[in-house]
Amino acid sequence: METLKIIKIGGNIIDNPIALDNFLIEFSKIEGPKILVHGGGKLATKLAQQMNVEVKMVDGRRITNTETLDIITMVYAGKINKTIVASLQQKSTNALGFTGADGNTILSVKRPIKEIDYGFAGDIINVETNVLETLLNIGITPVFCAITHDNNGQLLNTNADTIASELAIGFAKKHQTELYYCFEKNGVLLDINNNDSVIENITTKKYEELLAKNIIADGMLPKMNNCFHAINQQVHKVCIGKSEMLHNQNSKFTTIQA
Amino acid sequence: METLKIIKIGGNIIDNPIALDNFLIEFSKIEGPKILVHGGGKLATKLAQQMNVEVKMVDGRRITNTETLDIITMVYAGKINKTIVASLQQKSTNALGFTGADGNTILSVKRPIKEIDYGFAGDIINVETNVLETLLNIGITPVFCAITHDNNGQLLNTNADTIASELAIGFAKKHQTELYYCFEKNGVLLDINNNDSVIENITTKKYEELLAKNIIADGMLPKMNNCFHAINQQVHKVCIGKSEMLHNQNSKFTTIQA
Repeated sequence: METLKIIKIGGNIIDNPIALDNFLIEFSKIEGPKILVHGGGKLATKLAQQMNVEVKMVDGRRITNTETLDIITMVYAGKINKTIVASLQQKSTNALGFTGADGNTILSVKRPIKEIDYGFAGDIINVETNVLETLLNIGITPVFCAITHDNNGQLLNTNADTIASELAIGFAKKHQTELYYCFEKNGVLLDINNNDSVIENITTKKYEELLAKNIIADGMLPKMNNCFHAINQQVHKVCIGKSEMLHNQNSKFTTIQA
Repeated sequence: METLKIIKIGGNIIDNPIALDNFLIEFSKIEGPKILVHGGGKLATKLAQQMNVEVKMVDGRRITNTETLDIITMVYAGKINKTIVASLQQKSTNALGFTGADGNTILSVKRPIKEIDYGFAGDIINVETNVLETLLNIGITPVFCAITHDNNGQLLNTNADTIASELAIGFAKKHQTELYYCFEKNGVLLDINNNDSVIENITTKKYEELLAKNIIADGMLPKMNNCFHAINQQVHKVCIGKSEMLHNQNSKFTTIQA
């Protein structure tokens, strides 16, 4: 298999139909095997409001009770995933939608209760690449939403960044694999208010410096942890930036280095 | 490939969690390649009510406007499909969920407007079995919900009975294929009020007699049309009855014959 590209998109693309269509046009042009991973965006919260279901958040993380899991399953695996799959088909990319339950691709355990009970949130314990490899080899593009399962019949809400990094790590054992995190910024910024202050390369050493200086904090921390986890587990290339990094030679973005 | 079994289940199983679990236990025991097709049941109507979206029906058929299509996509491809897939994984059946957009398996056209505008309802024009065959050959069990696409980015609400028969016809060109319609009755009944009055065999000639006597009418008509369409297009066996017909040797059901 040629180099596999795993690309994760988030709310800034998913929540904007025009941005999503433009992204999928560019995504469909990428040659070689590829996997798309998408987060959920704001649609689940919107649906919860419409259904009068209370969304509980602790420290910016959603608490997934039964009603919320239903909503997430409907929105992520239903509406968003199938809209993307149908749109990619239109663009001549033979997409096939996945949760981690499909083909038993991503196995999780329900997050153990410590100080906080996150409810039906999944921590990934295994990625099985065989079915995906078979499909990639016949030209299929898997499209993952942020849901996994526990192999005991339970679906689990799972962080999309982590799904992307764990998939990349799973494939990196056998194939050259690249991981791209697309988000609303040009990359990791030296000055959060200046989108041109992209740090183009971050090594483990540099990362420690940035952490010490408090330049990387809050929402960037788990994202960076996923990046370094991947680069330290044989993933060939890990990049973070706007989706333009995938096709625009002149765009600046951040590359993570071991 | 061994004989392929395509099994369709409807609301009487889907709407009842215990009935669904019991069915999936038996389904998971069926040896050899198999495909499950599920309808939507009452959950979409329930969600529409919860969201204050009006469900329009004409002659018992749903009119699929944009809001209804969203609901159907969320409920059929999201909640129901993924619940079934996760439950089958628990039962050691390696299931993988599909709409017709996934893997470009089922292509439809939006139903032309005649007297009634059905909205985003799809009439199937092509079934592509290659991706499904690849998956069946590695032990995957595809699970289809009642949604297809037009290859122009549009998802389309599509009759689940028709999806089952068209899949069976698509496979019958190359493989021995059997089609089982599971519903709430023991089969086609001579007396609709007597569940023991099962007509065990219906040939084309017998069907014409039953139609003339008005014994087959209303909701059974499209179902029977799907059955005869399949049996006339090389599908090896077409049966209709309670899901018990799949495992209980003594249960009575109706077999359709050319």
